Amino acid sequence: MNHKRLQEPTLATEPIYDGRIIRVEQLTIQLPNGKTAKREVVRHPGAVAVLAAPAPDRLVFVEQFRKPTEEVLLEIPAGKLEPGEDPAECARRELEEETGYVSTNVRPLYEFFTSPGFADEKLHLFVAEDLSTGAVHPDEDEFVNIVELTASEVQARLTSGQIRDAKTLIGVLWWLQHKDEQLQGTPGRSR
Amino acid sequence: MNHKRLQEPTLATEPIYDGRIIRVEQLTIQLPNGKTAKREVVRHPGAVAVLAAPAPDRLVFVEQFRKPTEEVLLEIPAGKLEPGEDPAECARRELEEETGYVSTNVRPLYEFFTSPGFADEKLHLFVAEDLSTGAVHPDEDEFVNIVELTASEVQARLTSGQIRDAKTLIGVLWWLQHKDEQLQGTPGRSR
Repeated sequence: MNHKRLQEPTLATEPIYDGRIIRVEQLTIQLPNGKTAKREVVRHPGAVAVLAAPAPDRLVFVEQFRKPTEEVLLEIPAGKLEPGEDPAECARRELEEETGYVSTNVRPLYEFFTSPGFADEKLHLFVAEDLSTGAVHPDEDEFVNIVELTASEVQARLTSGQIRDAKTLIGVLWWLQHKDEQLQGTPGRSR
Repeated sequence: MNHKRLQEPTLATEPIYDGRIIRVEQLTIQLPNGKTAKREVVRHPGAVAVLAAPAPDRLVFVEQFRKPTEEVLLEIPAGKLEPGEDPAECARRELEEETGYVSTNVRPLYEFFTSPGFADEKLHLFVAEDLSTGAVHPDEDEFVNIVELTASEVQARLTSGQIRDAKTLIGVLWWLQHKDEQLQGTPGRSR
């Protein structure tokens, strides 16, 4: 498979918008067939999300109103990266701020692009281990409900279509399969 | 859980950019505590993605250069919705255009938001059944490699972190768990 011939070099970059969180650019690119085309690209600082199970059969979620979707979504704890912030450090911070749980050890699970057709947002998904209870201290102006669900409750919401957030779907599909390995603390489990 | 108190009504909408595919708006909203805040929102027409297994142990992918990420990503077949297009019809169309496979029956699996913090893109994920071979006819100016992988090849790429696209992670995590049910064509399988 020749990846090189799929490349699309940038010929020109036109800045469109420089916002508080996102930037938007219109790029002129060269296609593999030599023609030029335009691409609209949203630049985002990246984000983290955390699978946190305070008990073997219990996963932590937050309910949060998401303005772009005009819906309250059930999500695993997550947050944006600060400039230069280590993703694991960000994961520990966001978990504690949003849920009050402290993890001494967050293990990287997957890294993925949420919407690579138009945005560069990369999400770092972690599994939080060795949880203890700290204090919830959400960002000012952040309003969330903390929800803890058993595996059968998670499965029911999955089956009925109530999990409507990509990172959360990835997290719970993984957790439902691997939570028992987790509990036993076996070495050699999936990365 | 009181969802009502999480709502954030829009006080003002400022259009920022009206592009070929996305639109960007800056919204002024009212927070649950009565204060106002700004939200940057990317509007997107929505998209579909398709799990297509031409043989019991074989799943179809496309490799595609994604300009926002500057990477060639391994993805399940996918595409944007045309205005007013039925998602199932779009799924059949994109599958055939990108891979040459024709499905008489695409079954909805999950609907989710790819990045609800800043975008309203909703993705409709389907399982294509009853595949037959048609002809590949990609969009002009679309350049993809078609790749078919066995379950163990998919698992290896998952474990090594080579699946870096959210919708594809969701699709393969589901498929690796459910493909045997699929094959047997048992009724009552998970939705």
